[in-house]
Amino acid sequence: MPKISIKGKSMPESPIRKLVPFAENAKKKGIKVFHLNIGQPDIKTPSVALEAIKNNTVEVLAYSRSEGSDEYRQKLANYYNKHNINVTSDEIIITTGGSEALLFAMGSVCDPGDEIIIPEPFYANYNGFSTASGVKIIPVISKIEENFALPPIDEFEKLITPKTKAILICNPGNPTGYLYSKEEIEKLAAIVKKHDLFLIADEVYREFVYDNIQHQSVLNNFGLEEYAIIIDSVSKRYSMCGARIGCLVSKNKNVISTALKFAQARLSPPTFAQIASEAALETPQSYFDEVIIEYKERRDILMTELNKIEGVKVASPKGAFYCVVELPIDNADKFAQWLLEDFNLNNETVMVAPAAGFYSSKGFGTKQIRIAYVLKKEDLITSVHILKRAIKKYNSI
Amino acid sequence: MPKISIKGKSMPESPIRKLVPFAENAKKKGIKVFHLNIGQPDIKTPSVALEAIKNNTVEVLAYSRSEGSDEYRQKLANYYNKHNINVTSDEIIITTGGSEALLFAMGSVCDPGDEIIIPEPFYANYNGFSTASGVKIIPVISKIEENFALPPIDEFEKLITPKTKAILICNPGNPTGYLYSKEEIEKLAAIVKKHDLFLIADEVYREFVYDNIQHQSVLNNFGLEEYAIIIDSVSKRYSMCGARIGCLVSKNKNVISTALKFAQARLSPPTFAQIASEAALETPQSYFDEVIIEYKERRDILMTELNKIEGVKVASPKGAFYCVVELPIDNADKFAQWLLEDFNLNNETVMVAPAAGFYSSKGFGTKQIRIAYVLKKEDLITSVHILKRAIKKYNSI
Repeated sequence: MPKISIKGKSMPESPIRKLVPFAENAKKKGIKVFHLNIGQPDIKTPSVALEAIKNNTVEVLAYSRSEGSDEYRQKLANYYNKHNINVTSDEIIITTGGSEALLFAMGSVCDPGDEIIIPEPFYANYNGFSTASGVKIIPVISKIEENFALPPIDEFEKLITPKTKAILICNPGNPTGYLYSKEEIEKLAAIVKKHDLFLIADEVYREFVYDNIQHQSVLNNFGLEEYAIIIDSVSKRYSMCGARIGCLVSKNKNVISTALKFAQARLSPPTFAQIASEAALETPQSYFDEVIIEYKERRDILMTELNKIEGVKVASPKGAFYCVVELPIDNADKFAQWLLEDFNLNNETVMVAPAAGFYSSKGFGTKQIRIAYVLKKEDLITSVHILKRAIKKYNSI
Repeated sequence: MPKISIKGKSMPESPIRKLVPFAENAKKKGIKVFHLNIGQPDIKTPSVALEAIKNNTVEVLAYSRSEGSDEYRQKLANYYNKHNINVTSDEIIITTGGSEALLFAMGSVCDPGDEIIIPEPFYANYNGFSTASGVKIIPVISKIEENFALPPIDEFEKLITPKTKAILICNPGNPTGYLYSKEEIEKLAAIVKKHDLFLIADEVYREFVYDNIQHQSVLNNFGLEEYAIIIDSVSKRYSMCGARIGCLVSKNKNVISTALKFAQARLSPPTFAQIASEAALETPQSYFDEVIIEYKERRDILMTELNKIEGVKVASPKGAFYCVVELPIDNADKFAQWLLEDFNLNNETVMVAPAAGFYSSKGFGTKQIRIAYVLKKEDLITSVHILKRAIKKYNSI
């Protein structure tokens, strides 16, 4: 029988995937499962985007340009300009989700065996894209005690080798909710310039920033024109995860011309979803204001409730809609499975994402979970109550 | 300044891409350009698919399952069963176009440095996916004089090394229009079994078969359950190139579970396009009957007209909507550019795809072009007339 590749075998599985059958079983037993584990917002997609799809006049559903439609890229450039990101439409390549933008970025700057330094914990699928690209992730530990702030810059410097091609950050962070400050981006700017590295910034949560803090993009005024690559997506911004539209933004002409070759090989990004994404740019500010207020309230309630549980350590998030929580338990993988398999409180339980899957270093995050606060406030309160009772019972077994 | 990867630099550009500025210039000068160069059908998308999009009831445009929606995969399994391809929904992974299915297949069966044998000329983007995956394409020459039939099987056997992981065919072929016979697939079946290789078959043109010949799928009764991987797409079947929906089909459980890990990393295929693709399965047979009659007539007219040009050699296509033509000229790259830059007949000219880009071996196909017969019959007649006059003039300069 023919054999699967070593790369294929070593492709990581989603840290949540193995819990799915347990969640399905629980539901079969009539138990209600609150999903704190996923980043799929419950927020409605802006009607302007949905209407554009319903009113589309497509007769032949043709390929778009490989770099995305001209109209959409032009409007997107305007969007960025409003965020003090001074780019033109030629500096944007529309991709099939932020996922594809990450793949194009890794392929454009790394050969197999090359290295990218990433503060951990980080978005688990970076592991999948790096394995698919043959790229080695070199983690730098950030600490829950420091809210997952940028690790000291000399920790990065120690790890730089001739194989290092880029530093990758997620800002605001998934799973940490951390928002890098101007000073932190300046430190990163200095080190990438010093060592001629790219700074890849996954900024898909740009809009999800609380407490009136200003988001710092790597293409704001940090002098990173030749160094910065932004990964972006409409998935979270407009609650359009299923569109699969993202983009890669860079002012470095070699990056754009190289990423374009990857884009040409796969012909074009999806046409209907580009129509929706272009229309979504007309979403009124009131939509975002409401969404941000909602998420801020959810975050505040979640923080308040979690801090009521004895022995729990929480990294207070300032952006995105995740937080990492350290629980007074032996092992979060075991606990997450037990929550679905053996526990319920009045026929209700919760599904959480064990955080070890967000670390590349072995043995880290084993007592931590990621919570996505994408549920209604009352459900969040119920969920944390269930969690509290579950921890007590779990530790008494 | 940070550096682009070697891989990124060596990503091939589309063989047509470099002609695009010349075509744009010609249009600026008021010259009408007939596009014989692209595989974008002018056929309308089935109304059942377009209506499904207009009538969609999506409120939150959420991720679908990574392997595609259950409903769509179930209906797709029924479609395959009608084509004597005995698969279940679990043996199908929905991908973002046939492009992504190819990437998943290469990643699942090959490590960097591994080899895939492909009869050439072949679909130029195989070069892009193989470069992106670090896979080496080993070409086997098929000949225009033999209509690009399967090369003798011992030509394949000579090229098999420990690094060979698969044979890849496109059936019916782009750019050749060749349709493999039952005997040819049997020969391929025997060699992949003998050497424990995968047989990857790009069957996206399955429906485009003329002269009442039966299409032979690698998952018909060839005993290839553990060996065959089908690459498929809705792009051509329903004139839905912009949907970006394809699939990978295999009865080999290791292939499916491995490809699924690649699918999970990129979260999900596009949701709107899956809605359209699911609905497209209800397209009435009359749609295909009309389309096939139209393409057959186009092909016949194209063959008749091309054969009127002295010194032209044509490989008669039995499927898809392409043919490769050898012209009595010195160099098809030069000629294609000259057609756009320096020639017009009553302010009209043609754009063709030089065929060298469809060969991996250097020096092959230099006098050949690919013609896509996706234009109306009268435009095809005009185009070939232009081509005839152009050849005469080009050779007299």
